Amino acid sequence: MTQSQQDDLTRIRRAHQRGHYDRETIDALLDALPLCHVGYVIDGQPLVTPTLQWREGDYVYWHGSSASRALKSSKEMNVCLTVSALDGLVLARSAFHHSANYRSVMIFGTAEPVEDEVHKTASLKHMIDHFYPGRWETLRPMTEQELKATMLLRLPLDRASAKIRTGGPVDDEADYELPIWAGHIPFETKAVEPIDDDRNLDGVSQPGHLKNHLFNT
Amino acid sequence: MTQSQQDDLTRIRRAHQRGHYDRETIDALLDALPLCHVGYVIDGQPLVTPTLQWREGDYVYWHGSSASRALKSSKEMNVCLTVSALDGLVLARSAFHHSANYRSVMIFGTAEPVEDEVHKTASLKHMIDHFYPGRWETLRPMTEQELKATMLLRLPLDRASAKIRTGGPVDDEADYELPIWAGHIPFETKAVEPIDDDRNLDGVSQPGHLKNHLFNT
Repeated sequence: MTQSQQDDLTRIRRAHQRGHYDRETIDALLDALPLCHVGYVIDGQPLVTPTLQWREGDYVYWHGSSASRALKSSKEMNVCLTVSALDGLVLARSAFHHSANYRSVMIFGTAEPVEDEVHKTASLKHMIDHFYPGRWETLRPMTEQELKATMLLRLPLDRASAKIRTGGPVDDEADYELPIWAGHIPFETKAVEPIDDDRNLDGVSQPGHLKNHLFNT
Repeated sequence: MTQSQQDDLTRIRRAHQRGHYDRETIDALLDALPLCHVGYVIDGQPLVTPTLQWREGDYVYWHGSSASRALKSSKEMNVCLTVSALDGLVLARSAFHHSANYRSVMIFGTAEPVEDEVHKTASLKHMIDHFYPGRWETLRPMTEQELKATMLLRLPLDRASAKIRTGGPVDDEADYELPIWAGHIPFETKAVEPIDDDRNLDGVSQPGHLKNHLFNT
């Protein structure tokens, strides 16, 4: 981030305002927040399906079963992929100025199918490596049939924007005279200890790469 | 929940499968997870906007500025409101069977504006009371202008369904012979200590109702 971009971010944060951000901010949000909601349209009816996304360079990817209605209805269609996290609640001196702290990215575009087998395999490996660095090599290799059963879609990031709200309330100036408690309540999400599958073989313990997973902060 | 419903839930959970649930389950998810994503369509382009929802009886409500494009484009239109939480990641013995644990509700319908001032006021009070029981009465009262500046929309819950996934991976039977660690990583989200606004008056401390807020679990 350049100094000027940092200054912008600081100014926006200080004013508790929402803003549109550069690719560096967009990429950081996409890389940190895997849950996304994809909007698509079937016969005029919008649908919003939660799924996991991951970023590779200038694209955001998502995937699922080749038989999935959500994916078949998104392929080569206009979609909207939104990533957001609720970071806290903001309590003001009036109901009206109550708010929420959040981070979000919204991306518009045409969902491109990735059908080339080499690209598709590399992207699925990228997904596993993004979530669990080092895990792919330890797994039973993907089969041809599994590759066929998976649909992979992507959107370019050229129509992406971010909004962030942080900090406390912004009340009407006159309301600051009132003896009403105001502030904000931050939320924290963290991964807890991994739970072993009941059917792990004797002697199979948690691998080192579990220490490096995306959420082990 | 009836015994038969409990049995269904137990059976579905045991099989690590997703299912459609009764209103009791749908209501419990809506009441626990305030972040939602509303899908609507402008000129054929789907949009997905994050906002907060709350339930009153057989409706889910959301609100915002009367000038909001998201709300104006949703009013009296077909929308999809999806609530979801990522509860964990599921690590299998093959890349293919990696998955996620989640809770989600998807609701379809026509977004009805609530314009009656008495209903609108009662619903906004209901929202504050849902998030922060006891807070509404302590606030500077809502003004006529604030009420006008707020658009309130709702959807009936008659086209709502839920999906839940819990537990560990479901691998191909042959893969259980492999010495590969499998399991799942649960996520936990919690509210942390409220942060006082810098401009709280001297002597104004955190009110008792902060101990009862929705996320203080």
